[in-house]
Amino acid sequence: MPLRDEFRSIIDNAVKAIHDRLYFAQYPEHPKAYGDEAPGKALETFNSLLGNKYTDLGQDGAEGWVGEERSPYTGKDLGITYPTFSTETLVSRANAAFKTWKNVSPDDRAEVLVDSLEAIKEYFHLIAQATQHTTGQAYMMSFQASGPHSNDRALEALALGYQELTRFPASLIWEKPMGPTSVILHKQFKPVAKGVGLVIGCSTFPVWNSVPGLYASLITGNPVILKPHPKSVLPIAVVVAEIRKALKAHGYNPDVVQLAVDSSSKLITKELAEHPDVKVIDYTGSSSFGNYIEALPNKVVFTEKAGVNSVILDSVTDLKAVLGNLSFAVSLYSGQMCTAPQNFFIPAGGVQTAEGLVSYEDVVNGFKGAVAGLTSHPKAGPGTLGAIQSDATYERAKNSGKLGGKVLLEGIDIANAEYPEARVYAPSIIEVDAADAAIYEKELFGPIVLIIKTKDTNQSVELAKKMANEHGAITCAAYTTDGAVATHIFEEMESVFTPVSLNLTGNIWVNQHAAFSDFHVTGGNPAGNASFTNPEYVSKRFVWVGHRSVQ
Amino acid sequence: MPLRDEFRSIIDNAVKAIHDRLYFAQYPEHPKAYGDEAPGKALETFNSLLGNKYTDLGQDGAEGWVGEERSPYTGKDLGITYPTFSTETLVSRANAAFKTWKNVSPDDRAEVLVDSLEAIKEYFHLIAQATQHTTGQAYMMSFQASGPHSNDRALEALALGYQELTRFPASLIWEKPMGPTSVILHKQFKPVAKGVGLVIGCSTFPVWNSVPGLYASLITGNPVILKPHPKSVLPIAVVVAEIRKALKAHGYNPDVVQLAVDSSSKLITKELAEHPDVKVIDYTGSSSFGNYIEALPNKVVFTEKAGVNSVILDSVTDLKAVLGNLSFAVSLYSGQMCTAPQNFFIPAGGVQTAEGLVSYEDVVNGFKGAVAGLTSHPKAGPGTLGAIQSDATYERAKNSGKLGGKVLLEGIDIANAEYPEARVYAPSIIEVDAADAAIYEKELFGPIVLIIKTKDTNQSVELAKKMANEHGAITCAAYTTDGAVATHIFEEMESVFTPVSLNLTGNIWVNQHAAFSDFHVTGGNPAGNASFTNPEYVSKRFVWVGHRSVQ
Repeated sequence: MPLRDEFRSIIDNAVKAIHDRLYFAQYPEHPKAYGDEAPGKALETFNSLLGNKYTDLGQDGAEGWVGEERSPYTGKDLGITYPTFSTETLVSRANAAFKTWKNVSPDDRAEVLVDSLEAIKEYFHLIAQATQHTTGQAYMMSFQASGPHSNDRALEALALGYQELTRFPASLIWEKPMGPTSVILHKQFKPVAKGVGLVIGCSTFPVWNSVPGLYASLITGNPVILKPHPKSVLPIAVVVAEIRKALKAHGYNPDVVQLAVDSSSKLITKELAEHPDVKVIDYTGSSSFGNYIEALPNKVVFTEKAGVNSVILDSVTDLKAVLGNLSFAVSLYSGQMCTAPQNFFIPAGGVQTAEGLVSYEDVVNGFKGAVAGLTSHPKAGPGTLGAIQSDATYERAKNSGKLGGKVLLEGIDIANAEYPEARVYAPSIIEVDAADAAIYEKELFGPIVLIIKTKDTNQSVELAKKMANEHGAITCAAYTTDGAVATHIFEEMESVFTPVSLNLTGNIWVNQHAAFSDFHVTGGNPAGNASFTNPEYVSKRFVWVGHRSVQ
Repeated sequence: MPLRDEFRSIIDNAVKAIHDRLYFAQYPEHPKAYGDEAPGKALETFNSLLGNKYTDLGQDGAEGWVGEERSPYTGKDLGITYPTFSTETLVSRANAAFKTWKNVSPDDRAEVLVDSLEAIKEYFHLIAQATQHTTGQAYMMSFQASGPHSNDRALEALALGYQELTRFPASLIWEKPMGPTSVILHKQFKPVAKGVGLVIGCSTFPVWNSVPGLYASLITGNPVILKPHPKSVLPIAVVVAEIRKALKAHGYNPDVVQLAVDSSSKLITKELAEHPDVKVIDYTGSSSFGNYIEALPNKVVFTEKAGVNSVILDSVTDLKAVLGNLSFAVSLYSGQMCTAPQNFFIPAGGVQTAEGLVSYEDVVNGFKGAVAGLTSHPKAGPGTLGAIQSDATYERAKNSGKLGGKVLLEGIDIANAEYPEARVYAPSIIEVDAADAAIYEKELFGPIVLIIKTKDTNQSVELAKKMANEHGAITCAAYTTDGAVATHIFEEMESVFTPVSLNLTGNIWVNQHAAFSDFHVTGGNPAGNASFTNPEYVSKRFVWVGHRSVQ
């Protein structure tokens, strides 16, 4: 069946946007775009889910019910439980769904998947509530990151997948002239799906980091088992439920996608990942587990692991604007973003500005003041910081004084007027020397910023490059007014496959990667082997097989 | 510099051909297309090379000279020696060339590489002589496989590489509306080359199997060290010499490609492959070494290893035409093609034909007669069989009677009137039972055909699928006049990522894969992880990095 016009235009626009890489959003990021009544209705629904079994998935025959989510805002358990299934049940249901799904045409797959995104759109505010009260993101970030930005990222993967699947003709008559006669063959070109996909979610971005792999696997014909982090299930459960409903409405087996909830005390991730029928794995999380995933034989794996992101300060026009931008970048969701800057390389000789040279000490003091000013602001502080998702991150932040550096700004608990029990923590700023690589070569996930005093910008670049090459990096923010220095930074950082954001000030931060334009993670350094969404991200999920017949 | 019109049109036509997948050849396959005087001149040049140092590469500072090629036609050493270099010398020269090559634009890279193909074209007959007297291929196959077909495969990889490199805009202004204002960023998208490439050649197809990886790495900005098989150096040495000359003529460092000759007694393949600066490896050869290559950490590898190719005989219209086609397919270059059929699955109940059921025994006898008739023909026999490349293949063929099956047709030495010393051997045909998987699950490289008597076609398909899944397959030839059976075969074989050639008779054989249309090896089963040329084959060689700046 050819794609219906409304779906066709969504796909076509997305494919065009991917190739233009200009600004594009299928799903507007402003909450108001979704109606004035939506937030209230969503809150009602969210409250009705608390303390109950989550039954919206329609996955029958539960072998148990588990749930261990707790709100970083209220400190209370959500009390929602989800059905559990054995690995064998999950894989055998996925295999059953695979039998038909792999033969569904790209057009028909695209239609049901775009349909699911349109359905999910109606639940953005519910997903935002769920995201806020699992990840600790502030409401606006919860809404944007798990709602429109996630849907856009999903659409990006689905549209590029669709384009790659339809890149070569499905069938043709091939005629080779051979002197007076010719050889004629009927040829078919089939993009054959690899097999069962597994998507392993993380606790901080349960939707945004899961849906690209989910939709990339689905559009290419692979059924997906989605294994969320036990502490962040609800946001992605709503998404999975909607995809299952869309599949059912279109007459497909809903087990094309299944939610596989487990508990911290009995994780089933390894069992699933090692199952021989699981052929494609998408993973977001720690480097140690990611390295294990990458080393599994005979699997196609896509990983986003940890990295250490650098800031290189060389010279600026307006130091205040720069430090304002950077103080927001490190405070946003308390550094719990894979794109958050951690290591600030600042030359001992100071930073040249339009008003003259500013000494190293004055730059550092200015930055400290900007962070303290933002985070202590009664409204902007909690709204920017959100809450700390995990006990481990909170402990790490509180103990940052023991890292070995000099504490320039102590991390402190911050009050949230709306949620008195919220676990909110402002970043600590620690000064270390360029020689202290043992401290700054690790990802210190959460609200910890390191200032590294360097000899000069050349050393800053050298160290930022070394960190990216050896420990991975997803972003690098750099500031220079010198064209030659900018070129040097671009060339050195791209040689270790790290994108540079140069001279950002105002309403754009290094942490943000826009769907349809910015590749998220390049896949070229130890921070991960996958990139949202480069062509490989979809093409590795299927195999081109060409049959030939004499007719 | 924009691509000059002549190069632009070659690239554009190739890109179109890749996406059309209709018949296309930039380089005509008939020797006559290259002039009547070319063969004689090439023979003269070839003879002048014998017994001498090969100096055409222009790789200075040789640390030694080695050569151990021997003609399977004359039994004599070629006596040509090639310069040798240490791994450190090769890699450091590659690194030096990489510094500039990685920053050469796709247009400029495409121009010099197309130029090199145009130059190589002038040496097709010399390369044919070199191929015949190293691989043992008959002259016509040597000409076509190492000449026009190789150039076409190289152009295919280069054109698809060019397309992927230019798929996204190199730079743009990104503007995101934000209420009354907007955020404006200058973005650059760079396809960043991975690093030094290593291409490891094989003894039987030293050009055809090497140039796709070679050109794919070069167009994507990676310098290449080409490590040929010590017994088949000259054909690819001519190619490398021409690329080096083209690079030099365009003002580039010729070390963008280097030939790395070694000797059987002191192979440097592992040293090169394990060098940390070698990031991309293309390999053709045995499964055991291929598995080692695939397991190397932190490398992008493309392999073509061994497989067991099946023939499934179910029902036919014209049995004689089918057996004629198959007898040629198994005799062509004495089964020394990675695409040659090995395992013939024939139902015990016989094969239905237009003239009624033909018993299993009569089918087998008919096939035996067709093979013996072709190979014993004084002209067609040696012209089809070529000569046996290696001692090991010859020994394996002569000992095929000891495999454990019933010898239906004994392999025999065949005389070649033109070359009395030629090592020519006709295929043996061995009958085994479906239960004898231990015999037929191995690739028996060379002139050995196994007939496997099965219960019925369902069992034939099941076993062919099992072999492809567990041991790899590059081709599957199937014959059926029943549409449902054909669909069953397509679906089962594509589920193990094996292409099916259905009902081939006449002047087209399962062994042949056409550039710009047939994917060679799917990359989906143990026969190899690479496919000439799917998009992955080029896109995995570079990384998209996007930089952003406020301007």
